[in-house]
Amino acid sequence: MYRSHNCGALRAADINKTVTLSGWVQKSRDKGFIIWTDLRDRYGVTQLIFDTERTEAKVIELAKTLGREFVIQVTGKVIERESKNTKIPTGEIEVLVVQLEVLNEAKLPPFTIEDETDGGEDIRMKYRYLDIRRNPVKESLIFRSKVANEVRNYLADQEFIEVETPYLIKSTPEGARDFVVPSRMNEGEFYALPQSPQTFKQLLMVGGMDKYFQIVKCFRDEDLRADRQPEFTQIDCEMAFVEQEDILNIFEGLTKHLLKKLHNFEIENFPRMTFDHAMKTYGNDKPDIRFGMEFGELNTVAKHKDFKVFNSAELVVGIAVPNGASYTRKEIDKLIDWVKRPQVGALGMVYVKCNEDGTFKSSVDKFYDQEDLAKWAETTGAKAGDLICVLSGPTNKVRAQLSALRMELAERLGLRKPNEFAPLWVIDFPLLELDEETGHYHAMHHPFTSPKPGQMELLDTDPGAVKANAYDLVLNGNEIGGGSIRIHDKETQATMFKHLGFTPEEAEAQFGFLMDAFQYGAPPHGGLAFGLDRLVAILGGQETIRDFIAFPKNNSGRDVMIDAPAALDNKQLGELSIKLDIQ
Amino acid sequence: MYRSHNCGALRAADINKTVTLSGWVQKSRDKGFIIWTDLRDRYGVTQLIFDTERTEAKVIELAKTLGREFVIQVTGKVIERESKNTKIPTGEIEVLVVQLEVLNEAKLPPFTIEDETDGGEDIRMKYRYLDIRRNPVKESLIFRSKVANEVRNYLADQEFIEVETPYLIKSTPEGARDFVVPSRMNEGEFYALPQSPQTFKQLLMVGGMDKYFQIVKCFRDEDLRADRQPEFTQIDCEMAFVEQEDILNIFEGLTKHLLKKLHNFEIENFPRMTFDHAMKTYGNDKPDIRFGMEFGELNTVAKHKDFKVFNSAELVVGIAVPNGASYTRKEIDKLIDWVKRPQVGALGMVYVKCNEDGTFKSSVDKFYDQEDLAKWAETTGAKAGDLICVLSGPTNKVRAQLSALRMELAERLGLRKPNEFAPLWVIDFPLLELDEETGHYHAMHHPFTSPKPGQMELLDTDPGAVKANAYDLVLNGNEIGGGSIRIHDKETQATMFKHLGFTPEEAEAQFGFLMDAFQYGAPPHGGLAFGLDRLVAILGGQETIRDFIAFPKNNSGRDVMIDAPAALDNKQLGELSIKLDIQ
Repeated sequence: MYRSHNCGALRAADINKTVTLSGWVQKSRDKGFIIWTDLRDRYGVTQLIFDTERTEAKVIELAKTLGREFVIQVTGKVIERESKNTKIPTGEIEVLVVQLEVLNEAKLPPFTIEDETDGGEDIRMKYRYLDIRRNPVKESLIFRSKVANEVRNYLADQEFIEVETPYLIKSTPEGARDFVVPSRMNEGEFYALPQSPQTFKQLLMVGGMDKYFQIVKCFRDEDLRADRQPEFTQIDCEMAFVEQEDILNIFEGLTKHLLKKLHNFEIENFPRMTFDHAMKTYGNDKPDIRFGMEFGELNTVAKHKDFKVFNSAELVVGIAVPNGASYTRKEIDKLIDWVKRPQVGALGMVYVKCNEDGTFKSSVDKFYDQEDLAKWAETTGAKAGDLICVLSGPTNKVRAQLSALRMELAERLGLRKPNEFAPLWVIDFPLLELDEETGHYHAMHHPFTSPKPGQMELLDTDPGAVKANAYDLVLNGNEIGGGSIRIHDKETQATMFKHLGFTPEEAEAQFGFLMDAFQYGAPPHGGLAFGLDRLVAILGGQETIRDFIAFPKNNSGRDVMIDAPAALDNKQLGELSIKLDIQ
Repeated sequence: MYRSHNCGALRAADINKTVTLSGWVQKSRDKGFIIWTDLRDRYGVTQLIFDTERTEAKVIELAKTLGREFVIQVTGKVIERESKNTKIPTGEIEVLVVQLEVLNEAKLPPFTIEDETDGGEDIRMKYRYLDIRRNPVKESLIFRSKVANEVRNYLADQEFIEVETPYLIKSTPEGARDFVVPSRMNEGEFYALPQSPQTFKQLLMVGGMDKYFQIVKCFRDEDLRADRQPEFTQIDCEMAFVEQEDILNIFEGLTKHLLKKLHNFEIENFPRMTFDHAMKTYGNDKPDIRFGMEFGELNTVAKHKDFKVFNSAELVVGIAVPNGASYTRKEIDKLIDWVKRPQVGALGMVYVKCNEDGTFKSSVDKFYDQEDLAKWAETTGAKAGDLICVLSGPTNKVRAQLSALRMELAERLGLRKPNEFAPLWVIDFPLLELDEETGHYHAMHHPFTSPKPGQMELLDTDPGAVKANAYDLVLNGNEIGGGSIRIHDKETQATMFKHLGFTPEEAEAQFGFLMDAFQYGAPPHGGLAFGLDRLVAILGGQETIRDFIAFPKNNSGRDVMIDAPAALDNKQLGELSIKLDIQ
């Protein structure tokens, strides 16, 4: 063993003990006759002291050569510090060094190993092993491990069994793009990496496992948006003999358990909101309800005058910005520019200042009188001193735009407090979603989701109106989990595939095994999957997932540290019976 | 909720309660006026009773239609059984059914869902979801989940952090064959699936994570021997600032914890044996020490007569088979046939019967006298009544052959008791292994293993003699874990790659990131990985891993249930910039 204690362990009670420590040189201060060196490991920092009066000369000489990040081992005596450091747990003591051994030297790191580093994203990723030495990254990874532990503790207490499902499965063209793996032993054939263990967990329910979970890697070959990873981790769960209510209760319990264990944060029953209500009130199916700024639909009070922009719009809708009436003209112009950015896409924005004296000043005073504007204020819940921002256009688009504006303003106003947690169930999702480009419907959740009882018939007449037994768990404006009650009989599943555009042959080829299984005694079942990366980030008070992943990939799907992916040699390709086909 | 209790819950104390149960129909006995139905779920079996005097006629009618594996829900009253069944926990009660609903019908399963099924391996794999309903498979999966839980509990107590390492990494031609994944976004390039997280866990040590573990899938594209899977699960561990002794202690502790928690089996410190001793005494680097039958090397007492077979052999070696002197001539001939099978490959076998009267009768009485044979008995530890089996030939081959015979005989003699556990550390492995076909040395463990201190120089003169800081944990004749102290400086690592036949350019291209990392302050480190599949099987008292894997693949690497791997369509291949190249 290279140490008797770690660098976070020693306290005043250890004074006079002889100890051995190992770790990294954080920094040294050489005062000539005394050298202080901060020694760091995962557990903390301990101050070492080399003193010309009390330490051998050759040890002092060696200590003078220590650079940042050298790996050393020291033996010495724990003594009381003259000037105590109350900021760190070891701040009452220091170690007077008797023996020093350099276990490994270190080149100067390409960025500083400090909480606030001077290294940019790219260089930090290339030297991720150095980045992980920094407290914020190290603590994020430790936090992730704690979250996973608590998830397992809770689910094991609830009699869930963790079952590993296979990674080498079959590609299904439906849905997102699969990563595939050529099979050497089955020439010309490919495995696919799972986008989720969906069909396997359903088969485990058919197999009577009753309550299944797994913390499992999933894979999706999508063009990467910011903060998406080609491989990601799911907490995947499934239960048999349950209804939606049972699942919501269990996973509400899990989320409460995590908030309690990790933040000592207690919360009453989670609110529930229908998908339709969420879209109407927040323009979004994952609303952040830590703050208000709810949508006020203004069609009835804004389409009666000669303002053509509104009159021709499908939806006129506004939000009240707290204390926004004090914004200058310049600030408001900037806000208008912001909503006109291509990422948001509004054509313009109407605003109303709600003055402290109860009067209104708007950008459309030409068309609307004080009485009109008072109604807008009432509908949007605006108070004196607020600013009403109004957008108009096709319903879906304008809702998305106003939702983006709402989130942006909340961010600027400091309303998205990272240490406040506002979970929310969004329920009654539509079963199908219209792809506006192709005009086809596809499954909003996935093709195994069951429609609400009695709504199968609607599939033929009004597919968009069919609601599903599907639900999302939203936390602070992020979807952290989603699931559904599944179809568990062959006929319904076949009907669903038909409505999704599968021929019977395609359905059989891709999911025949599942429909077969449904004929041998499938219980009613349903489940839910959490995105662990995002759950951990939000519980950790952050919005980006990258620092909660030990070795993330960049936006081109590359691991810049190991330089993957990479070319293969022809022998390897030949064994797999494939060759490159680069246009 | 479809039930108030599960099928394993009800006891005498519940009598008179009204309960709702759901589950599968295990079997029904229709006595005309009474029907008894066994209802099964994951938790147990509860007997239902439908009684013409106490149950509504329409419910009785429906009950008569129930087939095996139908999924039903019943509500009824818990009553005392007339004839109790002491074999099951619910045996004191039955449920008098009032309401019955068929939740799902079931076709007749292709094999019986019983502990001893009539289904062969192939059909059970195709309908694995039905196989999982059988107790032996279900219990194996639950047992696996318990083992994984206990592993995590122990390691978390020891301050290990579970860190997820990436699945999409880089292919390295060295070692076993990788599964690869074409990258769509990086044309012509491929990821590889990890054979182990080896380099990542070492980088985590460089990153200061200090104690890492992960229960993780690994992948190896090898021609499948029996009981191997292309994807398998490892308990992967690494520690910094440790020596071999520290690692052995921690993982000996883990193994003791598992034996205690799962079997209430306590054991003193694990014995340790050098690789050389294991090979000499058991012909094998993973000896089963639940029984003796140690090798006796007979060169000095068998090469002094005119028996050419022995005189020309490199090694003459025997074992004593307890009570084998009573074997008939026919039985011994069968044993000789057994060692001559191509899988074993011996050319013949010499035997000596140690008679109860102290005399010997051998198949080579022509060459050896009683005094010679007495020495053989002494060397092999044979007692009166035993049979000595002697093989001869080139040392490595003959040891492997005699080891196979030793294991076979122990199996036949019932010496390999599944509920007895004999762990063993095998240490001081050679660093390199000679590939007899190519004449090249390759790493016995992997290229990151460090040689014993002071042995680097031997690499140039006698590479086969260099010992490594490498160790295996053996349990009941199976290697369940292995690891090593790693190299942690760039120069040693570069030297190692050179000796393994890498050019400096190849070493840099494949492992440059690791050697770079070693220059930025790498601590001394080492680790160990357990094969979870085998560990679970052996702890579960079995030798084959297949029933401890929910969805295993067959020997061609196929999942016969979902029929994977499968062909891809050309569009998918085109997106990946590859095409088939079938000769």
